[in-house]
Amino acid sequence: MVNVLGWLASRGSKPEAFVLSSEETFDVIVVGAGCLGVAAAYYIQKNSPDKRILLVERTLAVGQANTAMSAAAVRNMFASSTNQLLTDTSIKYFEHVQEEIGYDLMFEKTGYLWLLSEEQFNHHSVKVWMERMKKSGISYKVYNKQELKHMIPGLNVDFTGDEEAELMHLQEVDYGLFGADCGVLDPTRLVEYYFEEFKKITHIKPRFGVEVKKLLLEADPKLDLPGEPYVWQKKKVKGVITDKGIFRADVVVLATGAWTNQLLDPIGIDSMTKGKKRQLFVIHAEDKKELQALLEVKGFNELGCIPFTILPSAGVYFRPQLQEHGFWIGCGDTFGREYKYIQTDDDMVPESAYYETSMYPVLSKYFPAFQGARPVNSWAGGYCYSPDRIPFVYLECGVLVVNGASGSGIMKADALGRIADAVYRGVSEAELFGGKKILSNTLSIKERNVEIESVII
Amino acid sequence: MVNVLGWLASRGSKPEAFVLSSEETFDVIVVGAGCLGVAAAYYIQKNSPDKRILLVERTLAVGQANTAMSAAAVRNMFASSTNQLLTDTSIKYFEHVQEEIGYDLMFEKTGYLWLLSEEQFNHHSVKVWMERMKKSGISYKVYNKQELKHMIPGLNVDFTGDEEAELMHLQEVDYGLFGADCGVLDPTRLVEYYFEEFKKITHIKPRFGVEVKKLLLEADPKLDLPGEPYVWQKKKVKGVITDKGIFRADVVVLATGAWTNQLLDPIGIDSMTKGKKRQLFVIHAEDKKELQALLEVKGFNELGCIPFTILPSAGVYFRPQLQEHGFWIGCGDTFGREYKYIQTDDDMVPESAYYETSMYPVLSKYFPAFQGARPVNSWAGGYCYSPDRIPFVYLECGVLVVNGASGSGIMKADALGRIADAVYRGVSEAELFGGKKILSNTLSIKERNVEIESVII
Repeated sequence: MVNVLGWLASRGSKPEAFVLSSEETFDVIVVGAGCLGVAAAYYIQKNSPDKRILLVERTLAVGQANTAMSAAAVRNMFASSTNQLLTDTSIKYFEHVQEEIGYDLMFEKTGYLWLLSEEQFNHHSVKVWMERMKKSGISYKVYNKQELKHMIPGLNVDFTGDEEAELMHLQEVDYGLFGADCGVLDPTRLVEYYFEEFKKITHIKPRFGVEVKKLLLEADPKLDLPGEPYVWQKKKVKGVITDKGIFRADVVVLATGAWTNQLLDPIGIDSMTKGKKRQLFVIHAEDKKELQALLEVKGFNELGCIPFTILPSAGVYFRPQLQEHGFWIGCGDTFGREYKYIQTDDDMVPESAYYETSMYPVLSKYFPAFQGARPVNSWAGGYCYSPDRIPFVYLECGVLVVNGASGSGIMKADALGRIADAVYRGVSEAELFGGKKILSNTLSIKERNVEIESVII
Repeated sequence: MVNVLGWLASRGSKPEAFVLSSEETFDVIVVGAGCLGVAAAYYIQKNSPDKRILLVERTLAVGQANTAMSAAAVRNMFASSTNQLLTDTSIKYFEHVQEEIGYDLMFEKTGYLWLLSEEQFNHHSVKVWMERMKKSGISYKVYNKQELKHMIPGLNVDFTGDEEAELMHLQEVDYGLFGADCGVLDPTRLVEYYFEEFKKITHIKPRFGVEVKKLLLEADPKLDLPGEPYVWQKKKVKGVITDKGIFRADVVVLATGAWTNQLLDPIGIDSMTKGKKRQLFVIHAEDKKELQALLEVKGFNELGCIPFTILPSAGVYFRPQLQEHGFWIGCGDTFGREYKYIQTDDDMVPESAYYETSMYPVLSKYFPAFQGARPVNSWAGGYCYSPDRIPFVYLECGVLVVNGASGSGIMKADALGRIADAVYRGVSEAELFGGKKILSNTLSIKERNVEIESVII
């Protein structure tokens, strides 16, 4: 018989790393206190009241990273039935929190309005989108050009004779696809809601200002040989290595969005996601009556304001921000704007030239009221793309990954938190708010069963 | 009418980058002279004889990067019918080149031998694998334990009483799955064959020692405004920016394997691939009669040597290297070994500890002849994973990407070169060697139609 382990043991002294005095042990560690992390922490704790769950966050408070950078809008108007289910149940829960529990999320039903050209409206993907919404009971309304022009006098629906518009490939507005159950909310309030509920039931004080440097991968079982784990050993993530010491747990929940690759790559798990920078620019309506008139268009919602509005071309969109009497302008750019595999803080700087050259020309062609308008504020954050634009939730080798929400994590946070809990407990179905169910492995990589999402912004 | 372009023009002076005197223009630029690049260049030139095709390569000769680092083995024994078709037709073409054209590729039919435990052999995925091979007419043979023991006396098929083997989770050998049409070849010879054929028909001298720094993305049409291309413009890759100047072309073929992300990420195309380092270690059989006996086992092939052999556990494999009378040892490690999103030269260093701790213990348990054997040589290269372990070939916005071969690019090179040509010419089907056809969009991202490959090494 060939003996090899004794020889391995003789190869060198056992390294002392990972045997620090600061080691602490928990049942679950949740990394990241953004909307997905706190929702997951809350539902896991709620359904496993005895488990010791540690929530760790790199910044100094909940929801301060990309959650705070979002356009903070919520919609159930997706093309995939998976995203419809995730968002529709989450939004109904947010309404429940605000209306019945009485916790103000600043949720306002502004509605979402997609402005579409004839060609876009008749595209196969838009037909499928509308059919699937009908089937799922998601209400929407179609406006024609005349109705739109009547309701939004400041909307330019006619580029006849405008050579610039032609050079810019701008599609004319022929239809509006409107969802009244969509709106905006305050993501910080949402994250704080889950966090406060979590704090009521957790046994472990959450820790802020703690940066997870690496996942702690160990042989299972350990043989106490130098250089473990070897290729032929079974391995499992047993915790996290942070700048404040080692924390151990049976399961590490990663709700780290565009930073996930940095933690998963070193242990050989392909997250399938990658990030892109997104920017928001704030335009105030005060002192300009045309912008005030646009902000205050009637007929779409009870607030008497313009809905979250997506232009037909270039991915440009805006939402009303009633508290500051203005607009947030964004852009769902695609080909030509770089992916960043791992997001760094240095990248997250808004570029005024991006507003001026890419958003403003489009915006002011469709809505001349914006002519001459300059941003009073701006910020940038990281968007985390999955290949099919549907989120991931899966447990592999001790890591429970919740990410890839593709720009719509906030509006799916409740459903994703419940699914993460079902995956943690190993039950085959997750029950979403309102009683609808989803198979727990639906959003996994290995047993994924979803339609590709075509309506991302 | 709102005028915006004049205002954009006034924003600043036009940048002078990309207007260098060294600019040259071609019809096609092929980036990367590895096996996929030269095969693509050859077939595109062959079927478009008038097109001016420039082949550029960072190193100083063909096939010097990861092509040269491979285990240089070829097999048609895949589980997906797509990979079966790509490899079976390519290998038949290699045989044709060697036997009929008379160009020696050093192709030797050693065969491939998977050693499997009872449990592995009866696994659903292995059943599917065998069924699909039958259906595709790929011949294989099953050996039982007694037959294997008889043919390879040096193979240990019994770990009874070996506590170390149990601690190491080693599966016992119960079956052998053998493919006689598989073997090894010299990848440098293969790349040189395509390159010589390409040189006979190309109008443009290939350039070596040229590093592509960026893809040249331009607005289409250009408006000659500062900071183009903007988000609202149509855009296209119009060439490459290299350390030796700008080269322009209608189509840029990227055959850059594990370096592809570095070029595609900045223009916002997600390659869906990522890399991992792989290492090979050379063991000589001379001076050790047990290793000589193992190298020279009879009955599997006409060469009278051990086949390319995959052990049941830990992904360890070896192949015979008859010219140097020895073995190349490799390992298809999985979870626990890091992914590298972009491959750097610095990473590509073999680690002796990897052989000693991860390969050697497994190897010597199954084949005690390796006991005490130490490598006389080693190297490392980059493996380029696709999510379904099937290659990508697609043309998007001026870039024709050929990558993601998942460790089996050499054995698919002929088929992938022909498919790249069909995609370039915009024809719906590619004809592979022997007359079999495949839809040109089969390997695209957007219209992908493949089975997931389960048999990767």
